[in-house]
Amino acid sequence: MRIVVLAGGIGGARFLRGLKQAAPGADVTVIGNTGDDIHLFGLKVCPDLDTVMYTLGGGIDEEQGWGREDESFRVKGELAAYGVGPEWFGLGDRDFATHIVRTQMLAAGYPLSAVTEALCARWKPGVRLLPMSDDRVETHVAVTLDGERRVVHFQEYWVRLRASVDAEAVVPVGAEQAKPGPGVLEAIAAADVILFPPSNPVVSVGTILSVPGIREAIAEAGVPVVGLSPIVGGAPVRGMADKVLAAVGVEATASAVARHYGSGLLDGWLVDSVDASVVDEVEAAGIRCRAVPLMMTDTDATAEMARAALALAEEVRA
Amino acid sequence: MRIVVLAGGIGGARFLRGLKQAAPGADVTVIGNTGDDIHLFGLKVCPDLDTVMYTLGGGIDEEQGWGREDESFRVKGELAAYGVGPEWFGLGDRDFATHIVRTQMLAAGYPLSAVTEALCARWKPGVRLLPMSDDRVETHVAVTLDGERRVVHFQEYWVRLRASVDAEAVVPVGAEQAKPGPGVLEAIAAADVILFPPSNPVVSVGTILSVPGIREAIAEAGVPVVGLSPIVGGAPVRGMADKVLAAVGVEATASAVARHYGSGLLDGWLVDSVDASVVDEVEAAGIRCRAVPLMMTDTDATAEMARAALALAEEVRA
Repeated sequence: MRIVVLAGGIGGARFLRGLKQAAPGADVTVIGNTGDDIHLFGLKVCPDLDTVMYTLGGGIDEEQGWGREDESFRVKGELAAYGVGPEWFGLGDRDFATHIVRTQMLAAGYPLSAVTEALCARWKPGVRLLPMSDDRVETHVAVTLDGERRVVHFQEYWVRLRASVDAEAVVPVGAEQAKPGPGVLEAIAAADVILFPPSNPVVSVGTILSVPGIREAIAEAGVPVVGLSPIVGGAPVRGMADKVLAAVGVEATASAVARHYGSGLLDGWLVDSVDASVVDEVEAAGIRCRAVPLMMTDTDATAEMARAALALAEEVRA
Repeated sequence: MRIVVLAGGIGGARFLRGLKQAAPGADVTVIGNTGDDIHLFGLKVCPDLDTVMYTLGGGIDEEQGWGREDESFRVKGELAAYGVGPEWFGLGDRDFATHIVRTQMLAAGYPLSAVTEALCARWKPGVRLLPMSDDRVETHVAVTLDGERRVVHFQEYWVRLRASVDAEAVVPVGAEQAKPGPGVLEAIAAADVILFPPSNPVVSVGTILSVPGIREAIAEAGVPVVGLSPIVGGAPVRGMADKVLAAVGVEATASAVARHYGSGLLDGWLVDSVDASVVDEVEAAGIRCRAVPLMMTDTDATAEMARAALALAEEVRA
């Protein structure tokens, strides 16, 4: 079975770990969000791609969900001693090596997709990890700070400001001109199932869908497209997805997110058991819906979610 | 008193520490060798400038004479895990930060001289540290390896091969087209004394002198130019200077090095007490010569050497 998964960072990576356990023989292609990529200290940092790579490759800091396990912060401390920031972004020493290799390869002329493949040669994530695009796309967020309207990089909004102010607009800068990365459209066209993990619907899955051609390819693939709600009981399971959902005029409910994707794209939707009351509403919007436990407390629980998603896909197909 | 010093790495840096103790009120400008600069992992590394900066700024690894004290090597270990080398060059985590800042500033368009000034704002070396040039100069060494003639970067010759094969030629690639860095010629013209520390006469002081205009400015400054022999008793005090001296046809003796610089450039020359027998030979070549202890065993001993150099300069001037 060929499965294509659109993934952001922590939520996508953890779901993928469960999917690998649930479907060990499947051929999984991950289309990774690169809209949260950022240049720091002259280095190209790809937080979502790295989170997927480290999580599936066994190098992740399990507790925080991003960055390397057994990490130290000596380089960052020295950079701060030079007065060079930002200090709010936690780049560890082991993590720095990844960004140094990536930046060196990009400078040598390799596209991000080739660089990602090279990095994965070490991590062996057990999936094919494809950046959504080799072109630069950067998610920017419009905010009002101290009475002044400003546009900040998504990482600044998410990590420095911790989404403490309203996101007035979320713009994937460069997406309109971006082309899907090598293999992306081919993987979608060859897929048996397409899954949206419980990743952020706006800045993760939404950004991937904003690359011209990807949404259309998914809609036209003719195979079941099933998503899992990142909203449980009216709040994001983790992160601050409600803030960016508000920016696109979508309520932070399991039902509203499904309707935001829409029946033109989505065939099936899993909501958490506590949201069983919205099943009818989602189905009325033309999307097959089931309520199951959606908390990724451990890999077994996550594998169970993946099984439910694949089962719903078969139900849709039949 | 305005003193200009042409410095390489460890020898130059340690001499400067003695000079600062010997002449605490002096205005010292250091013209640093950049011919051993190298690009590693996409980062610009300036070993000699950094050794001067770390030594005078209190950040050096005292025992090995280069790199940062209390250093760790986690980034390098991770790079090796990606299969990315070279592994023979010892870049530590704290040191990496310096190269990251430098590379980022160079990429932003600042010349190396401005970058060096910015880095020194943290280290406060107590001297004005000027790169010999803002233009790229790289010392290459011709060698025969396994029967094949090859040209390697100086660092590869010095660090990886440990000068274990003959240097058939030493070429400061790019020097002919290089211009002296901002302030270099002005500092020389304004100097009261110019000193050559016991640095490598070929790949350190020699490389600085190979930048068109610098040698001429020193010769025409009309002030005493005094050097200290890096060769004691027929062997380099440290390093493998004999190997690169052979490449330029100069014997590894205190006298031969003085005559290599020549009386057109050098007014005074200090040799070690064990080489007292060559004093007459050096003086016969038109260079005032004195024999004094030249082992930089500690800062006091080094300050004594600096005092002897300044005394010889006054003797020459009178």
